[in-house]
Amino acid sequence: MDLPYTRIKGGVCAARNFHGNAVSCGIKDPSSKRLDLSLIYSTQECRSAGMFTQNRIKAAPVRISQSHLRAENIRAIITNSGNANACTGPNGMQDARNMTKETARLLKLKQREVAVCSTGVIGLPMPMMRIEPHYGSLVDGLDPKKGDQVAKAIITSDTHEKEFAISLEIGGKRVRIGGCAKGAGMINPNMATMLCYITTDAKVSQSCLESATEEAVENTFNRITIDGDTSTNDSVIVLSNGAADNKILRRGTKDCSNFTHALQFVMNKLAKAIVRDGERVTKFVTLEVKGARSHLDAKKIAQAVANSSLVKASWNGNDPNWGRIIHAVGYAGASIREELLNISYGTKIACEGGLQSSTNPEVLRNIVSKPEFSITIDLGLGEGHYRIYASDLSPEYVDFNRSEYAYWKQARQDGLV
Amino acid sequence: MDLPYTRIKGGVCAARNFHGNAVSCGIKDPSSKRLDLSLIYSTQECRSAGMFTQNRIKAAPVRISQSHLRAENIRAIITNSGNANACTGPNGMQDARNMTKETARLLKLKQREVAVCSTGVIGLPMPMMRIEPHYGSLVDGLDPKKGDQVAKAIITSDTHEKEFAISLEIGGKRVRIGGCAKGAGMINPNMATMLCYITTDAKVSQSCLESATEEAVENTFNRITIDGDTSTNDSVIVLSNGAADNKILRRGTKDCSNFTHALQFVMNKLAKAIVRDGERVTKFVTLEVKGARSHLDAKKIAQAVANSSLVKASWNGNDPNWGRIIHAVGYAGASIREELLNISYGTKIACEGGLQSSTNPEVLRNIVSKPEFSITIDLGLGEGHYRIYASDLSPEYVDFNRSEYAYWKQARQDGLV
Repeated sequence: MDLPYTRIKGGVCAARNFHGNAVSCGIKDPSSKRLDLSLIYSTQECRSAGMFTQNRIKAAPVRISQSHLRAENIRAIITNSGNANACTGPNGMQDARNMTKETARLLKLKQREVAVCSTGVIGLPMPMMRIEPHYGSLVDGLDPKKGDQVAKAIITSDTHEKEFAISLEIGGKRVRIGGCAKGAGMINPNMATMLCYITTDAKVSQSCLESATEEAVENTFNRITIDGDTSTNDSVIVLSNGAADNKILRRGTKDCSNFTHALQFVMNKLAKAIVRDGERVTKFVTLEVKGARSHLDAKKIAQAVANSSLVKASWNGNDPNWGRIIHAVGYAGASIREELLNISYGTKIACEGGLQSSTNPEVLRNIVSKPEFSITIDLGLGEGHYRIYASDLSPEYVDFNRSEYAYWKQARQDGLV
Repeated sequence: MDLPYTRIKGGVCAARNFHGNAVSCGIKDPSSKRLDLSLIYSTQECRSAGMFTQNRIKAAPVRISQSHLRAENIRAIITNSGNANACTGPNGMQDARNMTKETARLLKLKQREVAVCSTGVIGLPMPMMRIEPHYGSLVDGLDPKKGDQVAKAIITSDTHEKEFAISLEIGGKRVRIGGCAKGAGMINPNMATMLCYITTDAKVSQSCLESATEEAVENTFNRITIDGDTSTNDSVIVLSNGAADNKILRRGTKDCSNFTHALQFVMNKLAKAIVRDGERVTKFVTLEVKGARSHLDAKKIAQAVANSSLVKASWNGNDPNWGRIIHAVGYAGASIREELLNISYGTKIACEGGLQSSTNPEVLRNIVSKPEFSITIDLGLGEGHYRIYASDLSPEYVDFNRSEYAYWKQARQDGLV
């Protein structure tokens, strides 16, 4: 059993000695006041761990942050939204480097203690002339109560900010873990187009922090899909500053395992919030595959079903269309035996032994009509299982993603392209 | 150079001694007169070859036809549309068998000389009570001029029938090759949700016919994608009755190679027609990947780009969004070097060395705004290349595919479920 967690306020600044701030630079839209540049900062030294996109096209800030993370002591993260700084060549690398350099200078840190993240349109040069005038006010305004400002500033097409924090007792001390995340589009394992920052005041050894981050990401952010498109900028960064003054959590101990579960609990809340707030999403579907010959087979099937346009369109249409699900099961490349396959919506069986069950289709239709439901695919072959959180595909998603051309127009107006 | 081809009329009955017919049984819709049961028949013995879906869930008619094809002498094909006879268990297998048995009895053929295909909704029992009364009129009405009726009867969500035929000179004789196909949804290599029947009066050895079919399918129907969903019913069947009385075409000869090219020419016309008539498709995109480290790498990239929801949505929105293309290139799992990557729309370069080119975005936008255009992705690494024909993703596609629930209602009314 997990330890009891207490939900607390403060998001990514809920843990002691973490400050945040966000300002509006006009990167998202020069004519609006939307927050688009943010900073997270620990007033004391940190241990840090991170996981980044598996896309082979990596944005400049991903490369810079990965390199800085090698020193394992990141204690500030600067983020802009509205431009991904991806496919921007040596200039983009210089822009990302400058963002960490200026932040470090003002905070009196080493440059390698600062990570940088960007999210937004791919392929356009960074409008640095919009960002540069704001470093001073960004740093000056740092405050332990501004976690929500950071959460607001990192979002793009999300409809609302996503933050969550808990406290729990470990090693005789109350420690806090909090975070914020953004998602909305280009969401797919591994790792979804997303940014997530988690801070904790627990004192954690480097190896416990890394193993906990890896395990928690694998079970949360790597289990969600909205559109099947893995982005160039995905980043999860975890900072631990030890302000709780607990006995250090070391890998392999019960305490480290408890910390891992708590970290996963926070990440799971944020990961599910990303799916629920996917672009023009109307359904949150928990897809369970079990009885597979292997874990990998279960994963292949879960991903094929969760990414099938036709399956997702049927969810949007409240259609308990198990025929489309079984067709995606069939092309997933996993071992199956058609006559052993069961598919259930909620607790009601729709397909039994590969055939239409006797369940009244209206009963199934009522389940799929709800905004949240689960689907279980039982292959009846073995012990392999996998869970994924998926969304529907709506006509509105496609309409929403038809064009980003306005960004190009703005970039030309700015003389950037 | 290929031999000169003459386009001729008659579709799947253009070749000598092939007859066709189609009737309306009310499978698609009991209240409409849409053709939904069809027959192709050669008045003389045939050699035959076929290729079928790689989905592990195979519809009953696919399994029956594959087994009948082993005798290599199929000379009649019965097809129903409106119900896929997939995931229908032993009863579905019996229904498919009965369709070949009744056809064989009336045509005085062996049962193994008849193939059966079905296309439509997955998972519902076949409404055999609608089909059975029509076998007699189906066979009685066979006619060499009714190729177009067959082409009409096999379509489902297609907006129009697809047929094409040519004649050419081989071995001193004029031979004919003609065919019809259906597609529209669940279209993806391998092999697209599609049915295609090709007939020829060329006399072809079994091994030439098989190698020609395999090569032509690989270069045509395996190169198209609409929605990335491989169906349970895909079938390509090629019949050769030798009525042209040419010197037999043997594998490894120039004549067999010429025949292969001509067969591929016909299949290519039909494959492209399937993409153009994809469900609610507004764009026909020829995607060329070149300069890859290997053929397989080029194929992986072509498929990732052609199946990315975000790339396809941008095509629908007339958005020359190379950033989305490069992000799909990055997650395809192929070797790339970002700084060597070029992406062009038509002849205009959009991304040069991984960066925004100096081409005016308006010029690119004009290209993507056309209903047909090409995109070339040059990896600059090697000789691997691959071409794929793809479509956009429209809000209307999703809307169109939201629900098939009406079929379930009908099936309940019929007492089938």
